[in-house]
Amino acid sequence: MTIPAEHIEALRALADPKSIVPEDAAGTHLEEWRGRWPGESPLILAPSATEELSRLMAEAYRRGVPMVPQGGHTGLVGGGSAKGEVIISTKRMRQVRDVSAEGFTMTLEAGITLQEAQELARKDDRLFPLSIGAEGTANIGGVLSTNAGGVHVLRYGNARDLVLGIEAVLPDGRIWKGLNQLRKNNTGYDLKHLFIGGEGTIGIITAAVLKTYPRPKEHVTAMLALPSPEHAVKLLSLAQARSGGQLGSFEVMNDGMLELVLHQFPDLPRPLETKSGTYVLMEFSSGQEGTLRETAEGILETAFEEELVIDGTVASSEAQAEALWTIRHNASEAMKKDPSPCVKADVSVPIAAIPEFLAKADAKVLEMEPGARIISFGHMGDGNIHYDILGPAEGPHDKWKARMAEFEHKVHDIVVELGGSISAEHGIGQLKRDELVTRKDPVEMDLMRTIKRSLDPKGLMNPGKLLNP
Amino acid sequence: MTIPAEHIEALRALADPKSIVPEDAAGTHLEEWRGRWPGESPLILAPSATEELSRLMAEAYRRGVPMVPQGGHTGLVGGGSAKGEVIISTKRMRQVRDVSAEGFTMTLEAGITLQEAQELARKDDRLFPLSIGAEGTANIGGVLSTNAGGVHVLRYGNARDLVLGIEAVLPDGRIWKGLNQLRKNNTGYDLKHLFIGGEGTIGIITAAVLKTYPRPKEHVTAMLALPSPEHAVKLLSLAQARSGGQLGSFEVMNDGMLELVLHQFPDLPRPLETKSGTYVLMEFSSGQEGTLRETAEGILETAFEEELVIDGTVASSEAQAEALWTIRHNASEAMKKDPSPCVKADVSVPIAAIPEFLAKADAKVLEMEPGARIISFGHMGDGNIHYDILGPAEGPHDKWKARMAEFEHKVHDIVVELGGSISAEHGIGQLKRDELVTRKDPVEMDLMRTIKRSLDPKGLMNPGKLLNP
Repeated sequence: MTIPAEHIEALRALADPKSIVPEDAAGTHLEEWRGRWPGESPLILAPSATEELSRLMAEAYRRGVPMVPQGGHTGLVGGGSAKGEVIISTKRMRQVRDVSAEGFTMTLEAGITLQEAQELARKDDRLFPLSIGAEGTANIGGVLSTNAGGVHVLRYGNARDLVLGIEAVLPDGRIWKGLNQLRKNNTGYDLKHLFIGGEGTIGIITAAVLKTYPRPKEHVTAMLALPSPEHAVKLLSLAQARSGGQLGSFEVMNDGMLELVLHQFPDLPRPLETKSGTYVLMEFSSGQEGTLRETAEGILETAFEEELVIDGTVASSEAQAEALWTIRHNASEAMKKDPSPCVKADVSVPIAAIPEFLAKADAKVLEMEPGARIISFGHMGDGNIHYDILGPAEGPHDKWKARMAEFEHKVHDIVVELGGSISAEHGIGQLKRDELVTRKDPVEMDLMRTIKRSLDPKGLMNPGKLLNP
Repeated sequence: MTIPAEHIEALRALADPKSIVPEDAAGTHLEEWRGRWPGESPLILAPSATEELSRLMAEAYRRGVPMVPQGGHTGLVGGGSAKGEVIISTKRMRQVRDVSAEGFTMTLEAGITLQEAQELARKDDRLFPLSIGAEGTANIGGVLSTNAGGVHVLRYGNARDLVLGIEAVLPDGRIWKGLNQLRKNNTGYDLKHLFIGGEGTIGIITAAVLKTYPRPKEHVTAMLALPSPEHAVKLLSLAQARSGGQLGSFEVMNDGMLELVLHQFPDLPRPLETKSGTYVLMEFSSGQEGTLRETAEGILETAFEEELVIDGTVASSEAQAEALWTIRHNASEAMKKDPSPCVKADVSVPIAAIPEFLAKADAKVLEMEPGARIISFGHMGDGNIHYDILGPAEGPHDKWKARMAEFEHKVHDIVVELGGSISAEHGIGQLKRDELVTRKDPVEMDLMRTIKRSLDPKGLMNPGKLLNP
């Protein structure tokens, strides 16, 4: 794609000089962090305020200039990579517009990082519960546009569930002032849900009213060994019913993952003596002090009695809890350290179907490639499994590389058969755009195209992402 | 509006005879329950399955026949009343498609009543938390299309927050099979949020996957007298921070409401000796047994020490808790029994602004009409106040009647000034359609019209509701 030079010059002239990202700072805007989608752009704009962003978009729209919105550019599906479009970054929009501890809200501009948002909430003894690996770089505009998930969805929901209102700039530059702070506002279509998770295809989120929560006063973290994923489903149900909504995380991992992490990070102590096929990392949290540990231990006692669990450890300090979480957090890094390239499926199925999914997928993969190493882990409480496949330990991996797409496809077939989703939390972007058409209800695909056409009739916003052009 | 007879005959011929509501059963479909919007319709269709509904809508669409969707017809804003259109009722669509206790979901068709849905959940020791006055008649299709609120929003959210997926029939009869059971499914625009709260203007919801929750094992209910609404805001914040998410309801009422209810229902005992201007009815609930009462009493102790509360009673039995709730539940009935007609504003403001709203609205109303009786009550935890005004106790009320719209308008002015909403939970329908245009951000109004036009290009679905034709 080549945009005529006159258009680029006109946008350059309209922008505040500080809003033009110089060539030597273009790196992170063009390079995708895993090097998968090299970017290209004739102009990178980073306006510092909504009004300027609005003016620039209005001019680009008038001239028919395609735009790629960018947040922290930490996405995993190529949603923020440019192929010759003008990049519009919200990184310089960093105003804290309002914080209300009593109202349990924060109104933040798009360029504030997720970690900064968490810290802002903490100052008032509040919690902003969205938490993902990339939180130091990912920013509010990006995590909302991609409806990020993470480790606290079970209790607090996805990014979408943490938003009361948004301000967004439409493709033609008009500003929608939708910074609703209200818990209840029943006045028509709830339009924010089109922009949240819309991957920048119908406009750019410039600010949002986020919900905060009472900060938990106490945590109890446990790592458990279970006979099978079926037992994990039963344990999840028991823990939810008995904890009164105080179950915050319920992460499952297979032995493939635990052993790989312990192998790649030899300094990490093995958390449990017993080896089994299925491990669960669970965390309870409570706003009351004093009773949580008793509740958690009661649940685990029942779980042992009912033989849902065969071994387990409950962290007795913050440091021990941290050590247990480190195993989970090092999963991606451990896979990166392995020389074999990795098939990464980010899928969800109904919670009760997880055991069936794992059994069928494992059998299929090992039938296709007996030497494949299956690393499955994820947010079981949300039905979300990261199902990753490493090729045989011994290289060369050329043959394995050539078959990776086939493996992903087979795994997705099983997911769809069980009523699941081929993208639980990472989104569609470029990576899954073409596959989406073959997996989603055709009426829903058509509705999505209708919405896109009606809100971005010239097709200028993040072209080629989420939907076919 | 008159629909040519040939169209009506064609639809009649296409329908299963059992799906045509006979004239002698048309009553509840045509009469609005408060008698405010008398209905008129040449044909009332109540198909029993999605496929039939789809065929009928496709034929109506082809012929350009306008349609009014109807659920239990218990709405408060005239959203389900017909003015000559064909009525399409979902009351006969009553299949329970799936219930999963382990997955915490129920997949129900639109015609199941809200109360039936609650009971279904209870059978499995689950909770479906949506609860409104009309729950015995209101049905799932209706409460989703209007995004109903109720008394448990503080903890569980509005109807919108309790839905994982929907099945809907589009204006042209196509069926969108969106019965997603997944907690996480990040594959494009979340279209269900257009239909939920869309008031039947872009299609008809025929089934939904609803979330259920662990059933609370214990409740603690208290009625408190407070010096002022400011104290109530502080008490709410204290209770939220200290209860660890176990605050289920936080209802506020003024002395006008308490005295009116006690006057109209003389058998009800006065709950507290102390008279004050502000009362709070709060309920904690927990899935754990044994610790809740201690927590609640600790919070109330602090509240007394900090002089947030001047008198209070904690229910010591289910029956006592019920008696306290009866006062709240009898509010609407008490107003109906009063001979003076009532201005009813259903508004929300940010929680911290509630005291300012009440002070300004009360002052304005009493300045305009010193004899007016102000009955304010509502879901303070959601920022939602039902601000009702009865005329002077002594009639005749002709002069009062003539000024009712003016009073509502002045109250709404104050709401909007404080960043609030003129419809917190009842919706727009016919009642607030014209006012909405003057109150909502014009860009948002335009976005809503764009969505409506793109999904219902012939303008056949529930014409004149929510948006101007």
